Amino acid sequence: MKKVRVIRRERFNAAHRLFNPNWTDEKNELVFGKCSNKNWHGHNYVLFVTVEGHVDDDTGYVIDLKILSDLIKEKIVNKMDHRNLNLEVDFMKDCITTAENIAVKIYEQLEEGIKSTGNNLHSVKLYETENNYVEYYG
Amino acid sequence: MKKVRVIRRERFNAAHRLFNPNWTDEKNELVFGKCSNKNWHGHNYVLFVTVEGHVDDDTGYVIDLKILSDLIKEKIVNKMDHRNLNLEVDFMKDCITTAENIAVKIYEQLEEGIKSTGNNLHSVKLYETENNYVEYYG
Amino acid sequence: MKKVRVIRRERFNAAHRLFNPNWTDEKNELVFGKCSNKNWHGHNYVLFVTVEGHVDDDTGYVIDLKILSDLIKEKIVNKMDHRNLNLEVDFMKDCITTAENIAVKIYEQLEEGIKSTGNNLHSVKLYETENNYVEYYG
Amino acid sequence: MKKVRVIRRERFNAAHRLFNPNWTDEKNELVFGKCSNKNWHGHNYVLFVTVEGHVDDDTGYVIDLKILSDLIKEKIVNKMDHRNLNLEVDFMKDCITTAENIAVKIYEQLEEGIKSTGNNLHSVKLYETENNYVEYYG
Amino acid sequence: MKKVRVIRRERFNAAHRLFNPNWTDEKNELVFGKCSNKNWHGHNYVLFVTVEGHVDDDTGYVIDLKILSDLIKEKIVNKMDHRNLNLEVDFMKDCITTAENIAVKIYEQLEEGIKSTGNNLHSVKLYETENNYVEYYG
Amino acid sequence: MKKVRVIRRERFNAAHRLFNPNWTDEKNELVFGKCSNKNWHGHNYVLFVTVEGHVDDDTGYVIDLKILSDLIKEKIVNKMDHRNLNLEVDFMKDCITTAENIAVKIYEQLEEGIKSTGNNLHSVKLYETENNYVEYYG
Repeated sequence: MKKVRVIRRERFNAAHRLFNPNWTDEKNELVFGKCSNKNWHGHNYVLFVTVEGHVDDDTGYVIDLKILSDLIKEKIVNKMDHRNLNLEVDFMKDCITTAENIAVKIYEQLEEGIKSTGNNLHSVKLYETENNYVEYYG
Repeated sequence: MKKVRVIRRERFNAAHRLFNPNWTDEKNELVFGKCSNKNWHGHNYVLFVTVEGHVDDDTGYVIDLKILSDLIKEKIVNKMDHRNLNLEVDFMKDCITTAENIAVKIYEQLEEGIKSTGNNLHSVKLYETENNYVEYYG
Repeated sequence: MKKVRVIRRERFNAAHRLFNPNWTDEKNELVFGKCSNKNWHGHNYVLFVTVEGHVDDDTGYVIDLKILSDLIKEKIVNKMDHRNLNLEVDFMKDCITTAENIAVKIYEQLEEGIKSTGNNLHSVKLYETENNYVEYYG
Repeated sequence: MKKVRVIRRERFNAAHRLFNPNWTDEKNELVFGKCSNKNWHGHNYVLFVTVEGHVDDDTGYVIDLKILSDLIKEKIVNKMDHRNLNLEVDFMKDCITTAENIAVKIYEQLEEGIKSTGNNLHSVKLYETENNYVEYYG
Repeated sequence: MKKVRVIRRERFNAAHRLFNPNWTDEKNELVFGKCSNKNWHGHNYVLFVTVEGHVDDDTGYVIDLKILSDLIKEKIVNKMDHRNLNLEVDFMKDCITTAENIAVKIYEQLEEGIKSTGNNLHSVKLYETENNYVEYYG
Repeated sequence: MKKVRVIRRERFNAAHRLFNPNWTDEKNELVFGKCSNKNWHGHNYVLFVTVEGHVDDDTGYVIDLKILSDLIKEKIVNKMDHRNLNLEVDFMKDCITTAENIAVKIYEQLEEGIKSTGNNLHSVKLYETENNYVEYYG
């Protein structure tokens, strides 16, 4: 059986700010600049989830993309879309909402569900803007 | 002299919510759904500004795009990027921050400055997401 | 009240062939080349629907994009996505399935529903490939 | 000599359906849904072929992209473009035409030709839609 | 018969510089900045040609896109691709190679050939970069 | 601490030609075709720089993208944008300006600066056109 990677793209639009609660406002402003604006800003985040597994002989699938998409919607998009990432997303509450941390947390939210399909979560890629994105491989 | 349209693309990332202060929270929720989330959400807005004018024989330009870009940055991007469109943008304060209204307001902010270069502001196009955008022609 | 154009992007993936039943197979092959392949080929069609109307003071909307998207899904996407445009789409049956004809027919399918929202259907743009697309203005 | 990866993008538009001949129509419908439509649907497939090799001192090339493009056209595009992947592509005939299987088969078709240029076929990436794609590494 | 616009995208990669021969080098540098670099720079130009005409009942075409593409290749791409726009393109020699002027000249080169197909050249759109483009309507 | 890859996209527009000074003009023409045009051609190059490192607990950053962007601008974009890659870029002078060689040289220019931030330069990806790009991993 051949090992193939399958990638699903999903999107969510959210507000956030970069803010370290252990620092003064001045230090936050110094380190994060306009990204720490106390009135928030936001992004159209674009998420790519890569699943690696063997191609099933009967279906020709590694994973039915409907199942993958539903899983991402349930665990990620429904919780992050049109939300404030700092205030409203339970799994983001203890960390700064940088793209790096968001990608790591998304990976952790998805890992088990994908394992239960008999495949591995290979990586998560997250675009914050067209010029800036991050990749996390677990 | 030939009349040509020149288009400049700029971007800004902002937070907003759709909210009519004359309505109850319930009615806002009913009409605007998740877009009225009181904790905000946000977008990577993409703006296209179209200027129409005659091509200058000496420069081959309708307008130096550096001048157009600087004007858009001064009047729009510097005021909207990494901001909350409902709370922090003076020219948005008296209206609901839909893409329609943002495009109209951006047009009004740019019209005079572009006229002073001897050209006309033809239109403003604003993308809120890859699937939704608006155009305003004055 | 300001007049603004609102554009919604939708997609559908379909099979088709270019074939004029009044012609011999040879003439179809001569005129349409590989596009007349009797075993079909297909495309990821990308559709842009432009609605023009006045911005409502209470909502800031020309049209709620959820309503526009639902209308396009009901009238177009549900009938064309994962279908054979020659065999399975009732409103395409009496014409050759070129991008030109598909765009005209989509316009005709949408016109009344959009008028009933108090707005006008301004135009339909349809991409067959990244290099080829058409626009119809009614 | 430095090892570099060179990527060539090609495209083909084809019809297909997902169908397991060992199953009843009902089971095909249950597993593959609208993708098993007996009248076919289609896609604008986008293919990325990655070749890895050493940079030649005399040419600065890993591989002349004209040679790579010609090879992909001869082995893949000419056989798949404007075709029915289930009925007309010899190397697809014994498998279900999922993106996973198409990518594996394309890799197998290209492997020898690229080896004969003194380089290695690193991977094949195939987009079925803007939201769904697969990667195969041999 | 319905009137439809058909758009074809083509690309060419060329070198150029902005330079007015009636000016001193200092004035060219002052007005055009780095765009007047005497050692040239270059772009991946992207061209969109819009043809407007009636849909033919027998073919479903306004114009066979193969014919349009061949015409653009003969008149434009073959003369501009991998060329120096200032030195090697006959129809650009008497003007500054701004996007505005290139678009006007391309329009003039295509107008007659498209008229001879029984259609009208509606407009030419030319991207110099992802942020800067121009449109000319004749 | 989690290891994450951070990617920054930058762009530069430049002229170049493919030319081996040890060969006759005829041989250059034979091997490189129109890419060896003695009057140059050019491209909108798109560069992706991937930095790998641990996420800092205090900032949530692998690297402040402002620092990465400034480094790329100082070392690469300011030297290559609106330049002739064969004549004006010191670190390109001893090699043929293929995408392969440009990517290798860019990697070498960036490696030390990125190491000094406590991270590793993972890879450089360079698009010459939408169909052709290269990746170098050091």
